Amino acid sequence: MPEPARPDGSVSPPLPERMRVARLDAGGRVEVAWMPVPRPGPGEALVRVRACGICSSDLLDWYVAEKARQGPFVFGHEPAGEIVALGPGTTPPPGLRVGSRVFVHHHAPCMGCAACRRGDYVHCPVWRRAGLIPGGMAEYAVVAPQVLQHDTLPLPDDAGWEVGVLVEPVACAVHALRRAAFRPGSRVLVIGAGFMGQVLGLVARAWGAVERAVVDRLPGRLAWAARRWATLVIDVGDGEAGSSAPGTALPGTVPWLRAPAHPAAAEPAGVARVLQERWGEGADLVLVSPAGEEPLRLGIAAARPGGTVVMFAPTAPGRDPAIPGHDVFFREIRLVPTYSAGPDDTRDALALLAAGLIPAAELVTHRYPLEQVATAYRRVKDPDALKVVVEL
Amino acid sequence: MPEPARPDGSVSPPLPERMRVARLDAGGRVEVAWMPVPRPGPGEALVRVRACGICSSDLLDWYVAEKARQGPFVFGHEPAGEIVALGPGTTPPPGLRVGSRVFVHHHAPCMGCAACRRGDYVHCPVWRRAGLIPGGMAEYAVVAPQVLQHDTLPLPDDAGWEVGVLVEPVACAVHALRRAAFRPGSRVLVIGAGFMGQVLGLVARAWGAVERAVVDRLPGRLAWAARRWATLVIDVGDGEAGSSAPGTALPGTVPWLRAPAHPAAAEPAGVARVLQERWGEGADLVLVSPAGEEPLRLGIAAARPGGTVVMFAPTAPGRDPAIPGHDVFFREIRLVPTYSAGPDDTRDALALLAAGLIPAAELVTHRYPLEQVATAYRRVKDPDALKVVVEL
Amino acid sequence: MPEPARPDGSVSPPLPERMRVARLDAGGRVEVAWMPVPRPGPGEALVRVRACGICSSDLLDWYVAEKARQGPFVFGHEPAGEIVALGPGTTPPPGLRVGSRVFVHHHAPCMGCAACRRGDYVHCPVWRRAGLIPGGMAEYAVVAPQVLQHDTLPLPDDAGWEVGVLVEPVACAVHALRRAAFRPGSRVLVIGAGFMGQVLGLVARAWGAVERAVVDRLPGRLAWAARRWATLVIDVGDGEAGSSAPGTALPGTVPWLRAPAHPAAAEPAGVARVLQERWGEGADLVLVSPAGEEPLRLGIAAARPGGTVVMFAPTAPGRDPAIPGHDVFFREIRLVPTYSAGPDDTRDALALLAAGLIPAAELVTHRYPLEQVATAYRRVKDPDALKVVVEL
Amino acid sequence: MPEPARPDGSVSPPLPERMRVARLDAGGRVEVAWMPVPRPGPGEALVRVRACGICSSDLLDWYVAEKARQGPFVFGHEPAGEIVALGPGTTPPPGLRVGSRVFVHHHAPCMGCAACRRGDYVHCPVWRRAGLIPGGMAEYAVVAPQVLQHDTLPLPDDAGWEVGVLVEPVACAVHALRRAAFRPGSRVLVIGAGFMGQVLGLVARAWGAVERAVVDRLPGRLAWAARRWATLVIDVGDGEAGSSAPGTALPGTVPWLRAPAHPAAAEPAGVARVLQERWGEGADLVLVSPAGEEPLRLGIAAARPGGTVVMFAPTAPGRDPAIPGHDVFFREIRLVPTYSAGPDDTRDALALLAAGLIPAAELVTHRYPLEQVATAYRRVKDPDALKVVVEL
Repeated sequence: MPEPARPDGSVSPPLPERMRVARLDAGGRVEVAWMPVPRPGPGEALVRVRACGICSSDLLDWYVAEKARQGPFVFGHEPAGEIVALGPGTTPPPGLRVGSRVFVHHHAPCMGCAACRRGDYVHCPVWRRAGLIPGGMAEYAVVAPQVLQHDTLPLPDDAGWEVGVLVEPVACAVHALRRAAFRPGSRVLVIGAGFMGQVLGLVARAWGAVERAVVDRLPGRLAWAARRWATLVIDVGDGEAGSSAPGTALPGTVPWLRAPAHPAAAEPAGVARVLQERWGEGADLVLVSPAGEEPLRLGIAAARPGGTVVMFAPTAPGRDPAIPGHDVFFREIRLVPTYSAGPDDTRDALALLAAGLIPAAELVTHRYPLEQVATAYRRVKDPDALKVVVEL
Repeated sequence: MPEPARPDGSVSPPLPERMRVARLDAGGRVEVAWMPVPRPGPGEALVRVRACGICSSDLLDWYVAEKARQGPFVFGHEPAGEIVALGPGTTPPPGLRVGSRVFVHHHAPCMGCAACRRGDYVHCPVWRRAGLIPGGMAEYAVVAPQVLQHDTLPLPDDAGWEVGVLVEPVACAVHALRRAAFRPGSRVLVIGAGFMGQVLGLVARAWGAVERAVVDRLPGRLAWAARRWATLVIDVGDGEAGSSAPGTALPGTVPWLRAPAHPAAAEPAGVARVLQERWGEGADLVLVSPAGEEPLRLGIAAARPGGTVVMFAPTAPGRDPAIPGHDVFFREIRLVPTYSAGPDDTRDALALLAAGLIPAAELVTHRYPLEQVATAYRRVKDPDALKVVVEL
Repeated sequence: MPEPARPDGSVSPPLPERMRVARLDAGGRVEVAWMPVPRPGPGEALVRVRACGICSSDLLDWYVAEKARQGPFVFGHEPAGEIVALGPGTTPPPGLRVGSRVFVHHHAPCMGCAACRRGDYVHCPVWRRAGLIPGGMAEYAVVAPQVLQHDTLPLPDDAGWEVGVLVEPVACAVHALRRAAFRPGSRVLVIGAGFMGQVLGLVARAWGAVERAVVDRLPGRLAWAARRWATLVIDVGDGEAGSSAPGTALPGTVPWLRAPAHPAAAEPAGVARVLQERWGEGADLVLVSPAGEEPLRLGIAAARPGGTVVMFAPTAPGRDPAIPGHDVFFREIRLVPTYSAGPDDTRDALALLAAGLIPAAELVTHRYPLEQVATAYRRVKDPDALKVVVEL
Repeated sequence: MPEPARPDGSVSPPLPERMRVARLDAGGRVEVAWMPVPRPGPGEALVRVRACGICSSDLLDWYVAEKARQGPFVFGHEPAGEIVALGPGTTPPPGLRVGSRVFVHHHAPCMGCAACRRGDYVHCPVWRRAGLIPGGMAEYAVVAPQVLQHDTLPLPDDAGWEVGVLVEPVACAVHALRRAAFRPGSRVLVIGAGFMGQVLGLVARAWGAVERAVVDRLPGRLAWAARRWATLVIDVGDGEAGSSAPGTALPGTVPWLRAPAHPAAAEPAGVARVLQERWGEGADLVLVSPAGEEPLRLGIAAARPGGTVVMFAPTAPGRDPAIPGHDVFFREIRLVPTYSAGPDDTRDALALLAAGLIPAAELVTHRYPLEQVATAYRRVKDPDALKVVVEL
């Protein structure tokens, strides 16, 4: 098979026959493997991946088990790289060409069906079909036609790869706020200060949330939030993790509430009580980053009457959370699950990153070369890790 | 105590000393009792109640038990009547005077607090404080100042009492559609064809829902819906209730789907399957009229991806419904509980009734004089009853 | 050139070489002419047009002059017909095949650009490029690929051609209400009771506008509105057109206001005064159907403070209307121009027609065979004409 | 007349008999005059004004002429001060008492009428009736009951008087963005970089506008915008005002476009061309700060198809701007006039100021004691002036 030519007739650099990828084997173990470099077909493009983030969803037990049942697979859906070849007859959209540094989404919609006309891109029937082959954690990946046309975005010249890597997760936060009918001027509570919690808080700040509280049990994460976006820290940990923040205020002006100084922080219903005391009422919008019944119920309790709770992560199949039906009815608490992000969200996300409103370089706390991907994968669970990136 | 004078100096008809009311006693039994006629204080008005509807929430076990624990109480929150006196210094709002035939809400907000500024009237702190004394099922009731100022509405001259009686329940349906961001042109599914289900369907039709499906197990109710508003009937009953509708189409054009002709109607997930087959996808908006986990899960299954499910009735305290967390996440199904109705909703409701878009006279299927209130109360559970009204 | 084959291998009926079309010549005169039957190219389809409506925009002096300057052209953008052939390699969207009876839009967007992602389909750069060749008033027309994929809709089996012909104009009304953030329950004023005014009123009624006033000077048009959708008629004519409606109420309940009985109907600012008197304030939404400064200013005056005025027709190039800047500022009157309709609007329009909420058969007041197209064209200006359709 | 007592029985400091005020005389001249200190009646409060901003609307010829016709009047509607007395029977809202440092609005709605239920507070019939007596430029002013209850806000302890002075103008910008359905992530153009233009730009930035262009002819104002909020500067001046910015980029990253380097900046239609070149299309939202036809037409030309133009200032009575009707129709440009601000807007404004998102201290460029009010009044027209404040 001859190498695909560039549209302008020039020849792209010869592609190698084989490439390295990171795979999950049937036991859920991470390994580096060799695979043939895929060739782009009609309408497709080939990207030389330069960096790929590890998403915590890659670590979900039920997700990994489900995928691994189908055999070893290449994971990774947060890649950034360079277009190195176009398939026969491929016309890239305006602004893209061989050589472009790009963010590539791992899914894209058809743009023409009923779901797409409503803006419900993630529910387009072709959404999950379209994607990256074999995956983001590969030196080369084929970009499906829909993805190339509708959700491959050129990176600004002065943007590092970490900007490209963060477009997808930031877009998920954008999607969440949009679906929740976020309003500038509102008061937001983020539950869980892991990577996605931090991104949700940063987007809420950039979009004009005037008060932004955060709940977590790890002082390091809370401190990061307080430095970057939070206006109120509620520390529900037991303190054994070595907090340097003794239940009072951070240097600066962010109040840090923690038992025993603030006993409410030790109670199940305490977060709601703290917001009542500080804000006069619960949060307009609660963004529940971790999956599960417990954080969801915490979020419901902390929302003001008429408020909204975003369910940002899926519960495992069959592990159905019980919600306080009586309470959500009489206080009219909306539950808004939000999954993934569409081509409108990725563009907003890239704009936030390009404007510096999301500090990409600081969100990426760890970088590893591909051969250390297993270490990288383990690192994600560290309390001090935000985004862990594998460089290829 | 002298009788209050009308503002124009004329004297209102002398009020009796005592009046009849309908009460629930500590055992949840309905009885007619005598009470003193209350006198309106400053800012208040006195209404001679002419009719009062029985709401199915008056029959909820947990609600009745909770209220009865506090001693016998006068129930009823759907009254219509005539203003017969004003308290000292009371200035009624424009359009109201002694002699006005009115709808009176049983709650009203202050209009000035943070919740009111957001339009979340039902969450105003004074909402439940304000009300009717002693209740709607009384020959006379005192109207609190907020209610008089903000949610007492004059009835059109040609409107019967049934119009006044229906304002509150129709307003609850208006509130539900508004909170659910209802869009004209959308496809709606109503679960449960009792009185409130019918009203939800009628409002959806009046506001431009182009497709309107209904699910129930009672043929009589389904037939009423098919005649009045439904465009698709899904009969999930076992047929023993004496259906005259044999699994095919009603006279006219409304398809009537029922097992065994349509086996899906006999399956738990069948409603979703029927909508998929008929509409190409689930409902944009599902209005779940009955309380409980089962109808809620049915509604979630029947919503299209990205759709909305309205939880229109409260579950009992402590009976928390488990929701399919995995499914609602990946299909992004919004849950929107809606409770009661505010002064904006009642005005829209009265406009719908006055325009004949809600056929009040047909929704009131039974009328009883006060002395038969116990019979009336039992009648609400009859399959053929929609609104049961007590005339005073 | 061989005839295109059907995808299933069957042969479509042989196409004639030549066809008849209706053209505007350089002098703006309507004539019947012969042209070759066009052949569909890749991605395209060929439609045998069965009926095409005449839009009043086809009669606008400036529009006709502008088009005619480019030579004779085939007008008509409201066709309905049957797919008779597909171009080589054309895959029609689900639900369409050779033989399908269809509505065909004359423009369609790419669905993938920034304007399309926002739902601003009519501003997609390919919008006007895509279309019908040579036009709607032709026995055969080629449907461009985007139009075939995104805005060609199958007609219900029981729908006559008039349903297909009306999809486009009804969609323009849907578009207007959507862009104006129309709210069910609102009060609407329609200025001008020509065909488009009637359609605007009908859509407003179907979508839940509780009060619907109409202004015109022709009694016949007003009477049609009163029978079909208007709840208040304001007759600003001089009566010489032979009104049978003597300044009072129609049989039924629609009040008919007219000078001298209602002097306001004779004044420039009278409409605003009538609404104030009847509704207590101006209209929430004013839909101004005719072009020009005078109806626009009438609409502005008749809107309530904070209300919206839709500008539904374009003024001629260079004929810039002066708006009352002081008044629109202090009363905060929004001006919302709305042009054409997108693929979301046409689907809503077809649903309204299919549900009988827009009475297609009655809106089409005149039908002519193609050889009488010149008469048909003149007929549009008759006071008693609503939609004039040419049958091919 | 005895001094009003504090509700807690303590005695407020004795009030003087007379006070100084700033007045406009019949010739539109500013003068300092003596008046009796007004006494608060039932429901009212008395405020010792400490600072009051001069609004450029106080300088509008037609406005001053209209007011002056009624005799000399005390101007000023941007006061901040301290509550020093309550009228008999006055119960201030929670959080306010004698001694509170407050922002006081000059208008407030009833909160209970149809306009208020819609959130159209500025169109409440009592809106303009309620106010400050005699005005904001007085050492003491009586606060009307509605204003005290609904739009008098306590200032944070650490906020200077300039924060209180700026609440009203910032609220007007909040109101404008809210009415224009501002969306985080959008691209905004501000026309006119005077004080209100700067505030509009600052609020747009705080609420998440990712691109923010500004047009003016005064380099000093443009430089202020570039330092604080603008991401693109379009300098349409002739340069004679002594620009230090030579048609290139500011220190930092804000591009500064100006003729002759960017010839478009010298053309009437140039701003639209610049945005097209830089952003790929016009602005989502154009905020037109100055009154008049010319800036309005500039704004219309610079909006993208489907975009919105806010008319932020009134034209003079009878000076009706002609709008390009053909263009606004085919490009569907919404015109949204926005006047003043309601109690929801002032709370959002104060939150923005308290959070430091609007840098109050820098927006107040000039402060004068009351005796120099005539100088202050003249200073407003200086190119280097943003907000001029009079201290009392």
